[in-house]
Amino acid sequence: MAQKKMVEAITSMNEDFTKWYTDIVKKAELVDYSSVKGCMVLRPYGYAIWENIQRILDNQFKETGHENVAMPMFIPESLLQKEKDHVEGFAPEVAWVTYGGSEKLQERLCVRPTSETLFCEHYAHVINSYRDLPKLYNQWCSVVRWEKNTRPFLRNTEFWWQEGHTMHETAQEAVEETERMLNIYADFCEKQLAIPVIKGKKTDKEKFAGAEATYSIEAMMHDGKALQSATSHYFGDGFARAFDITFTGRDNKLAYPHQTSWGISTRIIGAIIMTHGDDNGLVLPPAIAPVQVVIIPIAQHKEGVLEKAAELRDQLKKAGFRVKLDDSDNTPGWKFAEYEMKGVPLRLEIGPKDIENGQCVLVRRDNREKAFVSLDQLESELPKQLQAVHNGLYQRALNNRTEKTYTAQTFEELKQIADEKNGFIEAMWCGDVACEEKLKEEAGVTSRNMPFEQREISDKCVCCGKPAKKMVIWGKAY
Amino acid sequence: MAQKKMVEAITSMNEDFTKWYTDIVKKAELVDYSSVKGCMVLRPYGYAIWENIQRILDNQFKETGHENVAMPMFIPESLLQKEKDHVEGFAPEVAWVTYGGSEKLQERLCVRPTSETLFCEHYAHVINSYRDLPKLYNQWCSVVRWEKNTRPFLRNTEFWWQEGHTMHETAQEAVEETERMLNIYADFCEKQLAIPVIKGKKTDKEKFAGAEATYSIEAMMHDGKALQSATSHYFGDGFARAFDITFTGRDNKLAYPHQTSWGISTRIIGAIIMTHGDDNGLVLPPAIAPVQVVIIPIAQHKEGVLEKAAELRDQLKKAGFRVKLDDSDNTPGWKFAEYEMKGVPLRLEIGPKDIENGQCVLVRRDNREKAFVSLDQLESELPKQLQAVHNGLYQRALNNRTEKTYTAQTFEELKQIADEKNGFIEAMWCGDVACEEKLKEEAGVTSRNMPFEQREISDKCVCCGKPAKKMVIWGKAY
Repeated sequence: MAQKKMVEAITSMNEDFTKWYTDIVKKAELVDYSSVKGCMVLRPYGYAIWENIQRILDNQFKETGHENVAMPMFIPESLLQKEKDHVEGFAPEVAWVTYGGSEKLQERLCVRPTSETLFCEHYAHVINSYRDLPKLYNQWCSVVRWEKNTRPFLRNTEFWWQEGHTMHETAQEAVEETERMLNIYADFCEKQLAIPVIKGKKTDKEKFAGAEATYSIEAMMHDGKALQSATSHYFGDGFARAFDITFTGRDNKLAYPHQTSWGISTRIIGAIIMTHGDDNGLVLPPAIAPVQVVIIPIAQHKEGVLEKAAELRDQLKKAGFRVKLDDSDNTPGWKFAEYEMKGVPLRLEIGPKDIENGQCVLVRRDNREKAFVSLDQLESELPKQLQAVHNGLYQRALNNRTEKTYTAQTFEELKQIADEKNGFIEAMWCGDVACEEKLKEEAGVTSRNMPFEQREISDKCVCCGKPAKKMVIWGKAY
Repeated sequence: MAQKKMVEAITSMNEDFTKWYTDIVKKAELVDYSSVKGCMVLRPYGYAIWENIQRILDNQFKETGHENVAMPMFIPESLLQKEKDHVEGFAPEVAWVTYGGSEKLQERLCVRPTSETLFCEHYAHVINSYRDLPKLYNQWCSVVRWEKNTRPFLRNTEFWWQEGHTMHETAQEAVEETERMLNIYADFCEKQLAIPVIKGKKTDKEKFAGAEATYSIEAMMHDGKALQSATSHYFGDGFARAFDITFTGRDNKLAYPHQTSWGISTRIIGAIIMTHGDDNGLVLPPAIAPVQVVIIPIAQHKEGVLEKAAELRDQLKKAGFRVKLDDSDNTPGWKFAEYEMKGVPLRLEIGPKDIENGQCVLVRRDNREKAFVSLDQLESELPKQLQAVHNGLYQRALNNRTEKTYTAQTFEELKQIADEKNGFIEAMWCGDVACEEKLKEEAGVTSRNMPFEQREISDKCVCCGKPAKKMVIWGKAY
């Protein structure tokens, strides 16, 4: 029988990291391009990853008291303009609807780039008393930002995300919510995606349009560049004032509620690819892998092999694993390559000899370690092996970050590091935006965030030498 | 303590069915209006109903081999125009994006009113051989149709739905898929939503733009009007030809695949309201009710009542029921009215006397029947009571449909029925679109569908008297 196709090799990541990335996105069948620039099709395998991410996070949001809603996708221009900083930040990059059928609209509508304004319009209708607070809402949807340079997952005209939008009686409660959600994202990245992240506050220059403070988690990709993996914003009562949202407080006086928003997007799939992938393709953390274990029969024409393989599949499915049996007529070698490309965490091989011995072979995707496992113990062994893959991925990513994290005391030192390599550069900052801009223009790095865990590398700003206020992570970013 | 608000009475359904409907939508907190006409906000309670619908159907789609994907929301005008009938049907009612940021687009993009064209563009990329078939895809998203007259759930500019899009090697397989999905929808409506439906084929006049055949399920609302609850379309290879989608067949020759699409939308929530609701508010079928059992403590200030109520809540939650305890300081009477408005299927009352007797009171939402249930047997009694509510709702809806289904032999007879009342009118049809148009213009009824279960009421067309081909259900529709 002919193979259905050859598994072609992909570009090596050391040769051309960008090409390696797009090769994986395509060959692992995550995405297809549509005829609208920057709009992607999430194919079944890519979408299944997103569904797993959604399922885990949605549970965590609900456990922390959040409710899902759905907002319209259109924002009238006048509504977008209500908060000054917000409209300045987003208006240049929105898609405008100007016609409905053959009729020109009286007011043009933008397709939501984010939904603060829509939530605020609704909150003004439903918040009257302190008894109506907090409102803890979330929605899963896609949003649109008109980008010039696009890359699948990393920068798209349309992308999928969740956006949480909450309103609170006091500033303190809102700040706590902002931190709570940042922690949920950080835990999710580390414990489910095996991606170590740095939690911190964004500088004013890099914060969200309209926010008082933006917090982020920053991950390092294999090539040393940073990827902002999720953000959480504290708005104070700025939007509430702009949208005239008031409530009667416990003291019977009118007050403005305090607001947050927070989001994670399909961008995180780009982070998974660039954190864990290798020259054989995608490597998926077990928690979100659409297939956790692929069963590949060896010498499948021999009596009993396919039957045993199918029996194992049914047994493991029933035990709650996401498992797939490939009983196609492709060779085992072809199948090995195919599921390595697709990043399946564990491969289970079973042939006539194994059946005789009551065992199977498990091969880890992260390091190709082989283990012979007794079929009796398979169900209890699998969670351990999946955990081992997770731990292996996390450790490798952490090592990569440790290796590529530098410190700089002076501008020259920082510039030299930035010129020669990608990585996180820890350096002190005076808090002046002029220094931030100089580092961007002359050293090509931006501030990633000001980590919650501060170290005092020096007492002087790396740029101007004036007294330092904060340690900042600087780097090149996706 | 003051009540948080009075539960206001709603308009009686017999007095003004339309007003009754919008009262429920608002007072049960399903929907809020946004400032874009016809675009609604799905509030937490409304969205939770949709999430339950999604969960059940998504499982059924996956069990029948379908995979979820996500397509872009934009369709370039040239892509929409590829299939002639399709563009004629949809172009008049789409929203057009003409600007990205401050730049005018070279080609305008419509916001998807449905995604056949997008799926076809993708299928052309990924279908090469019979080995790539079938493709069984689905997506959950919102779509936009520029409607003049809008009503929450029933007719919206933007609404949420799922759209399945499949491609098959043979026409027969595609037809079977069309029927399979129609059956899934019908079963879902009857077994989960307690809404009896009539399965049938649409006339050519009423079929989907670009389809060879459209099948529908039609439900009757409390007022006797019809609501098309889901549709399933067979396209033949028309789109495949227009989009140049070919595959190498088993005979090594190029062929066009055969296509289907099928969908159900948030409209079905309108059907739930208008099938089951009453003058006290919403009545929800247990399978999709966000809260299946609401626990209302009686004399909750007395020692042990709130503790026992909380204990029951935890116990029932753990047993898998969707349960809510209202321990607010509103009176029991207020709470009864509130959760009747919200359509919660079962109310569980527990007070000091009940605790003493080791029992509680269960009250059904559909008929207010009361039962005293021993706390020991609560867990096993609840599923029976929920099933009883379901059965009660189904039977009442079926009775309503039976009462309001008429037959007509002549045009005069049909017109008289249509003038005097709403309902389904079974009458024979010759198959001529001229008769269909006359019935619409002069009797104000449209063809709902041609039921699979045909009866021969007469051998003559109700309109022109020529030989009849099919029995058609005629009626006024939402």
